[in-house]
Amino acid sequence: MKTYREMSREELLSLKEKLDQQFADAKGKELKLDMSRGKPAMEQLDMSMGIMDVLNSEADMRNEEGVDTRNYGLMDGISEAKHLMSDMMGGIPAENVIVYGNSSLSIMYDTVSRCVTHGVMGSTPWCKLDQVKFLCPAPGYDRHFSITELFGIEMITIPMTPEGPDMDLVEKYVSEDPAVKGIWCVPKYSNPQGITYSDETVRRFASLKPAAKDFRIYWDNAYSIHDLYDEEQDELLEILSECEKAGNPDMVYEFSSLSKVTFSGAGIAAFASSKANVEETKKFMSVMTIGYDKINQLRHTRYFKNVEGLKAHMKKHAAILRPKFEAVLDVLEKELGGLGIGEWTKPRGGYFISFEAMEGCAKAIVAKCKEAGVVMTGAGATFPYGKDPRDSNIRIAPTFPNAEELAAATDLFVLCVKLASVEKLLAQ
Amino acid sequence: MKTYREMSREELLSLKEKLDQQFADAKGKELKLDMSRGKPAMEQLDMSMGIMDVLNSEADMRNEEGVDTRNYGLMDGISEAKHLMSDMMGGIPAENVIVYGNSSLSIMYDTVSRCVTHGVMGSTPWCKLDQVKFLCPAPGYDRHFSITELFGIEMITIPMTPEGPDMDLVEKYVSEDPAVKGIWCVPKYSNPQGITYSDETVRRFASLKPAAKDFRIYWDNAYSIHDLYDEEQDELLEILSECEKAGNPDMVYEFSSLSKVTFSGAGIAAFASSKANVEETKKFMSVMTIGYDKINQLRHTRYFKNVEGLKAHMKKHAAILRPKFEAVLDVLEKELGGLGIGEWTKPRGGYFISFEAMEGCAKAIVAKCKEAGVVMTGAGATFPYGKDPRDSNIRIAPTFPNAEELAAATDLFVLCVKLASVEKLLAQ
Repeated sequence: MKTYREMSREELLSLKEKLDQQFADAKGKELKLDMSRGKPAMEQLDMSMGIMDVLNSEADMRNEEGVDTRNYGLMDGISEAKHLMSDMMGGIPAENVIVYGNSSLSIMYDTVSRCVTHGVMGSTPWCKLDQVKFLCPAPGYDRHFSITELFGIEMITIPMTPEGPDMDLVEKYVSEDPAVKGIWCVPKYSNPQGITYSDETVRRFASLKPAAKDFRIYWDNAYSIHDLYDEEQDELLEILSECEKAGNPDMVYEFSSLSKVTFSGAGIAAFASSKANVEETKKFMSVMTIGYDKINQLRHTRYFKNVEGLKAHMKKHAAILRPKFEAVLDVLEKELGGLGIGEWTKPRGGYFISFEAMEGCAKAIVAKCKEAGVVMTGAGATFPYGKDPRDSNIRIAPTFPNAEELAAATDLFVLCVKLASVEKLLAQ
Repeated sequence: MKTYREMSREELLSLKEKLDQQFADAKGKELKLDMSRGKPAMEQLDMSMGIMDVLNSEADMRNEEGVDTRNYGLMDGISEAKHLMSDMMGGIPAENVIVYGNSSLSIMYDTVSRCVTHGVMGSTPWCKLDQVKFLCPAPGYDRHFSITELFGIEMITIPMTPEGPDMDLVEKYVSEDPAVKGIWCVPKYSNPQGITYSDETVRRFASLKPAAKDFRIYWDNAYSIHDLYDEEQDELLEILSECEKAGNPDMVYEFSSLSKVTFSGAGIAAFASSKANVEETKKFMSVMTIGYDKINQLRHTRYFKNVEGLKAHMKKHAAILRPKFEAVLDVLEKELGGLGIGEWTKPRGGYFISFEAMEGCAKAIVAKCKEAGVVMTGAGATFPYGKDPRDSNIRIAPTFPNAEELAAATDLFVLCVKLASVEKLLAQ
């Protein structure tokens, strides 16, 4: 089989004619599909409905400490929820955890916002500084970049490797530039590539020597138990203890949530860090809030009981998600394998497949998909400021559509990849 | 009956001897009671337990728009919750409402924080200004003052009158000083005095001519349906429409919540404002969060159905709270009436009774209560920076203790008032 680059102009033109016809046919189907966001499928949500029966009008609403979860108090979360979330994050001591409301994204926003207005442990508030920078491993999570962009924080793209972010670059920026105050990380099954940081990467993170005292690693451990396979699961080194060993106990803010375990928007979320960081956070929380929804915390802990309960539940998710990932991967392999017009990741967990098109083709592919009724994540969204310098990365979110929709959407996607690639080659 | 001021030194000394003995006896009882916070009583919480049965594992989790409340989406709240909260706030159009998570305090914090980092509709962010001031009608709500204090906002105390804040002063500050960016208001059954702003006060608010374009009224409508009596209910003029009539549509941020309707910390909260303010808020929300807990919104709206359902529920609360308020008021009247050592409010709703001691006695009274085992809200807490210039206001929170505890706590309180007053007079 020839790669597209090996084809003659005539061959490409003839191919284009065929693809144009296929595209016209595809448009005729009037698809209306969405592969843009990492949304759970309805079957996954159904799977958690048992949690709705855990607390009824006869339930004992006191937590294991004997506190009435219906009233004020326990601002930092009920103790059983701290334990559940700390175990989920890899066995962090429960006292290093604060349990919040429904969204880890809100915790990240609040954390950055607080640094902007009040600094970190007495450092100059970032709003008083001329320049604040964040390192952004990319492709990465668009909502992280939106937060730092909103606060006018300069974002520096760090290339990803199969082991995690390019640590040579990270070390250089962090140790040399005191304006670098943070780095966004999704360390396990990264969004969108599904890469898990290697032990060496985690240790190099833990051993960073920041020029800025208020530098923190923003460790968004969003997919800690979101494995697709029973075996072949990625393992992530627990970073808080690594930081402590390396003499950097306060360097990490870790975030986690159950949004993709029970219900998106009705789960519980957590923050974990050193004792000193947790204490500082609580000081601000006491002004921000009267506390989070402890009843929902109780509901989740009574339902899952412990981290084993969580993991058993996630195996059921995997049984739904694995075939979806495999279906997309099969089509990609079958239709694009050997053509030299795209590469893609084969993640063992998380919510995404990352597709790397020929340089300069991502926007065109996404636009064509949209034209024929399939919404993909916007090209560029996985990079700071929405600008992919190579215009090549596309995030595929296969979780929400059903099998039939997924097949239709993926068929269209590969067609658009082919068409955009041919057009690109013909224009050269 | 003589007032304390009319007593001779000998009479006071003899009285003190008697009171000292009573105080020693009271300490001997080793009370452990808390009248410090506006916490609902357990019977009130029990009354809402039916809400726990509204959604079970068989429930249809789609809202009236057909959206699955278990998944992402509807960032600004489900439509039925918008309607419920808008009706509760006095009939605001639902499109002017955003429904949040569990805490209106968090919305207020976020709102102020956003002004600090990003300004208001394009105005200079407050963190870039040399001076930002808030007007603080006092006695007022300590947690409001904590927010503005945390952000280094200068707080100016505005005296309260039986009609609401001293509007002559408010108008003067707001129209003359461009550094004045906001005012904290609890317009109905104010915390702690239980005062409801008169129609004229509301209209004067709506007609303010602020020197600062980014001036907003922070209208914490916390007790809109928290009446103690079936008749004799206070009525609050709806301020958003008044502002619109007065040509100031964007001047109010209104806040509300169900924390003291169902469960403290597991209710739902709302923000209401002009279309322009709501649009601006949503723009920021889209970066802050993936949305709030829609399942809990659904639970609340299915349970109460409409504002009539809410009001019927609050009548049941009143039946529990009214006797508590009356018990405290009876003891105050019986033990302190005519002595000239204190005045107090007789609220028709809300969560507090406000006690005005002789000047310079509040701290001493609260300290004595604590010494004998009854925790009151800290003296001064109802004023900016925790400093009551007259050291006279004490907030009494009668809702949480049961009848027996309340009797014991109030008996001790009046004893401490007497004792502190005698000591004060003797020291003069």
